[in-house]
Amino acid sequence: MEQLRTVQELRAWSDAQRRADRRVALVPTMGALHAGHLSLVAEAQRHADAVVVSIFVNPTQFAPHEDLTSYPRPLESDLDQCRAAGVDAVFVPAPGELYPEGAQTFVEVAELAKPLCGASRPHFFRGVATVVTKLLIAARPHVAVFGAKDFQQLQVVRRLARDLLLDVEIIGAPIVRDADGLALSSRNAYLDAATRREALALARALDAAEAALTAGEDHAAVLLEIAGKEIARAPSARLDYAELRDPETLATRERVAGPALLALAVSFPAAAAAGRAAPAKVRLIDNRVLRPPGAPVAPGTDSQQRGTPR
Amino acid sequence: MEQLRTVQELRAWSDAQRRADRRVALVPTMGALHAGHLSLVAEAQRHADAVVVSIFVNPTQFAPHEDLTSYPRPLESDLDQCRAAGVDAVFVPAPGELYPEGAQTFVEVAELAKPLCGASRPHFFRGVATVVTKLLIAARPHVAVFGAKDFQQLQVVRRLARDLLLDVEIIGAPIVRDADGLALSSRNAYLDAATRREALALARALDAAEAALTAGEDHAAVLLEIAGKEIARAPSARLDYAELRDPETLATRERVAGPALLALAVSFPAAAAAGRAAPAKVRLIDNRVLRPPGAPVAPGTDSQQRGTPR
Repeated sequence: MEQLRTVQELRAWSDAQRRADRRVALVPTMGALHAGHLSLVAEAQRHADAVVVSIFVNPTQFAPHEDLTSYPRPLESDLDQCRAAGVDAVFVPAPGELYPEGAQTFVEVAELAKPLCGASRPHFFRGVATVVTKLLIAARPHVAVFGAKDFQQLQVVRRLARDLLLDVEIIGAPIVRDADGLALSSRNAYLDAATRREALALARALDAAEAALTAGEDHAAVLLEIAGKEIARAPSARLDYAELRDPETLATRERVAGPALLALAVSFPAAAAAGRAAPAKVRLIDNRVLRPPGAPVAPGTDSQQRGTPR
Repeated sequence: MEQLRTVQELRAWSDAQRRADRRVALVPTMGALHAGHLSLVAEAQRHADAVVVSIFVNPTQFAPHEDLTSYPRPLESDLDQCRAAGVDAVFVPAPGELYPEGAQTFVEVAELAKPLCGASRPHFFRGVATVVTKLLIAARPHVAVFGAKDFQQLQVVRRLARDLLLDVEIIGAPIVRDADGLALSSRNAYLDAATRREALALARALDAAEAALTAGEDHAAVLLEIAGKEIARAPSARLDYAELRDPETLATRERVAGPALLALAVSFPAAAAAGRAAPAKVRLIDNRVLRPPGAPVAPGTDSQQRGTPR
């Protein structure tokens, strides 16, 4: 596995793959890899001959009060996991590589970045769009893979790739859950055992709303109330949002007439940290694309997958 | 000369040049070509084996009240000039090529875009940065050439190319002036003969400030007053700005201690239009990088050139 440190090295690696007629896939990550990331790698390997995983905790997507400094950075474990997964190259840049001195250029996706996570984290998608654009330009992959857990991020990236004429296919990979249903996230590591059990409320809320839809209830207000009640049953949970939106445009939906994204964000208190930096709270997101009963599911558009992949 | 209509065709053309080991230069224009543009082509030819000129009146850099609809679009004459200049390919995209349906992604260069033209035209540099990014991504040139008349634009483009990791050299080409000193601009066509004579005030203002500097006056306030007086001598001129700034950062400068950009923007009434759309006013810009007497001039950093080039 090659370790690339500079943009120059990344470009040279990608060019060499292309000259050898190998399709290149990029899997952008912030490290702290888990089975969800490895499912992205596996998806990338299905679409390409050479997979590069970037590992970079991107400062511009954190607000000053957020968990940039405490975000986990277990680099050696990340490299081991990439090696074991058959990754061809990792790109671990120093900050100055992606943000040259005096950097002040930002990529903004106007409408898609506004609702949901964009409402409570106004810097977030600007930071994501900016760093993903840089990575796509530097790595010039044929495909890039993003997880459907960050559904809005996936749509923002699809939009910017299309709008900026980047010659890349953006692939969304299904959410990976632990056996108990909790969507995998690097931030789950901040939860103690009791809070982790409470955090199952997110998946239960999605299940409950989906069950109600299957039983014939298609009004957003009612489905969101059902989801909200599941969250409220977790004593330490604080609901950030529960919304039903069009999966493509992210416009609000009053009824589930076609595919509809049910998206949740919920904060929990972080476990007391012994000997390491930790944030005060842990914000978890989860989602499911709901479909009216009987509606056909297009291949590759479902976001569900349970248990460790591969 | 090849005529490319789609992004796909542009990519294929550029890839073919690269495969044949030919260096590619891009000259982005909004058409209405004049000798200034042709000097950019000549500069591009000095740096590359294959030159593509893009001709696209970019809607996102015009505010609603500005002259988007009346901006001149003499396509046949533009193509003739490109052909005569030995241009290898022109890219004349339909609007949907550069702004796909639902496009909402914008590139912003935060600090450099704020002062000077950015103050009175807040949308302008966002539109320029966005379309130039798209063109650089799609054409993937080794070099791209921009005129120094739009000095702030040149610095914005240099910054975004660096920040977004675009593997391209941005080259600034000197201002081209008519024999009487007026900087060439597609918008000069809107001036009647009398107003055109008044517009020479811009070049005279730069000359006067430079002469005062040579005579030992290095205070910005005094030099700007001298320049402003030259503008005020033109009865129909309305000064938008006259400023002295650092050429790299565009920070304001109180004294000319090193290279200092003297930048002017002045509006004039447009000629009454017979049978064609025309704006109500014509906004002209001009600039000069002033240097303290005796300071060495780095090669390629001077912005002055008089008369038709080549």
